[in-house]
Amino acid sequence: MPFYQYFNGDIIDIDSPVFKTNDLGLLRGFGLFDYFRTYNGIPFRWDDYWQRFENSARLLKLPLPVSQSEIEKVLADLHSMSGEKEVAFRFVLTGGYAPDSVHVVQPNLLIRTESLPQDNPAGRLKGIKVLPYEYVRDLPEVKTTNYVHMVLMADELKRQQAADLLFHKDGEVSELTRSNIFIFTGDKLITSDRNILNGITRRVVIDLAKAHFDVEIRAVSYKEVITADEVFTTSTTKWVMPVVQIGEHPVGSGKAGKRTLFLQELFENVVNNWGK
Amino acid sequence: MPFYQYFNGDIIDIDSPVFKTNDLGLLRGFGLFDYFRTYNGIPFRWDDYWQRFENSARLLKLPLPVSQSEIEKVLADLHSMSGEKEVAFRFVLTGGYAPDSVHVVQPNLLIRTESLPQDNPAGRLKGIKVLPYEYVRDLPEVKTTNYVHMVLMADELKRQQAADLLFHKDGEVSELTRSNIFIFTGDKLITSDRNILNGITRRVVIDLAKAHFDVEIRAVSYKEVITADEVFTTSTTKWVMPVVQIGEHPVGSGKAGKRTLFLQELFENVVNNWGK
Repeated sequence: MPFYQYFNGDIIDIDSPVFKTNDLGLLRGFGLFDYFRTYNGIPFRWDDYWQRFENSARLLKLPLPVSQSEIEKVLADLHSMSGEKEVAFRFVLTGGYAPDSVHVVQPNLLIRTESLPQDNPAGRLKGIKVLPYEYVRDLPEVKTTNYVHMVLMADELKRQQAADLLFHKDGEVSELTRSNIFIFTGDKLITSDRNILNGITRRVVIDLAKAHFDVEIRAVSYKEVITADEVFTTSTTKWVMPVVQIGEHPVGSGKAGKRTLFLQELFENVVNNWGK
Repeated sequence: MPFYQYFNGDIIDIDSPVFKTNDLGLLRGFGLFDYFRTYNGIPFRWDDYWQRFENSARLLKLPLPVSQSEIEKVLADLHSMSGEKEVAFRFVLTGGYAPDSVHVVQPNLLIRTESLPQDNPAGRLKGIKVLPYEYVRDLPEVKTTNYVHMVLMADELKRQQAADLLFHKDGEVSELTRSNIFIFTGDKLITSDRNILNGITRRVVIDLAKAHFDVEIRAVSYKEVITADEVFTTSTTKWVMPVVQIGEHPVGSGKAGKRTLFLQELFENVVNNWGK
């Protein structure tokens, strides 16, 4: 499984030292990324992920050094060299090397080929526990590399047998560390539209849900989440993941909800048939 | 001027690619740093800077792989190899290489030798303009690598002929992007103690000022700053730098204040005589 990576035009071994030490991503946290995977060997919703990556770059005022079609060829090469049927790709764009450690001169573009993450099939059926955490992401519309609180809390999550943090501030929830949040109140499906990253999985799930439920896209209060009948979270790696406990509060019955599992099935159909 | 850097026990050329691409500093912004310089060839307040670096590491739960005395020898080597009389050192500690891109396994420690920054002697005499900016640093006591807003606003600062941003939120000021803030109201010197990085220059200036002025260390409102007689900012590279304009508001007379210039002189005496 010899994975490779792309860096500013070159394809090199995934374990090579690559970054010089005056990169603004490293010194100033000035970087953004995106992450997606293949199904049936085909990158899932590639246009959407590329557009989001472009949007993040635009908001951080970083010019993209390559076009979508050039990168498509790179992805095909990286995929083929991996020898794997399915892979994940991590795009990272940083402010590049800065002689004065402040001003952007030329961004650095990295694309890592990665193996698929553990899928947590148990969590998908039984649901996960999350911890409420008072925080709102800075520049939430940009997929910046700033995940300090997630890394900082990783051990505490493990200790409390929780899978993630639920960000809330001033009585309003926004998202989990790397995924969006949805709640069911009866047959009404509600998801936040403020202070969030616009998830691709979120968008797919909203489209799938519209045929079956009332969908409300608006600010969601912490109280609504705590008192909801069902709660779930969506992401590239989590798909539709039931949330069954928030801190010490069980959600609804404390078990994965039937509407959530129904949407999960719809989503699984989409990815299982992707490219077919 | 062949500068070198230290990385996890090795001393290597400053331009070498060093970091593998699964470093948590790069992928997750999980890193901290510190920065100081020599005067008369001797690192200034080295114990204070080391303690602050240790404190940042402790707050991000990163174990330091080396002791202060081991690092002292490294600094002496890096300094001597540079061939320069005066140098600056940048310490960077990241979460290290993470197979799962979330959990810390072993931090990476980098020490860069850098040439002294431009001193801006004109600014030190005439004062600088700053732009008010609604923001408060996350984990302000930790010198994390997160300077996204500073880099993002660098061009706008240039366009408005301003030297820095003044962070304020909910009517309260905290600090500039990389320096602390002080105001004079008559002979009373006031500096913020909330949501700030504990500056070493700040501490020296407070000690120097106590013999000459009433010093109040407490929350400072934005209104107090705007209506102050004198405003200045302190940092390793700025020393005691008068702030003469905040957005469109001139500070006091619009010129560097006499008390500020007096403290600047006291501080310059300290660094000019450092190690003598």
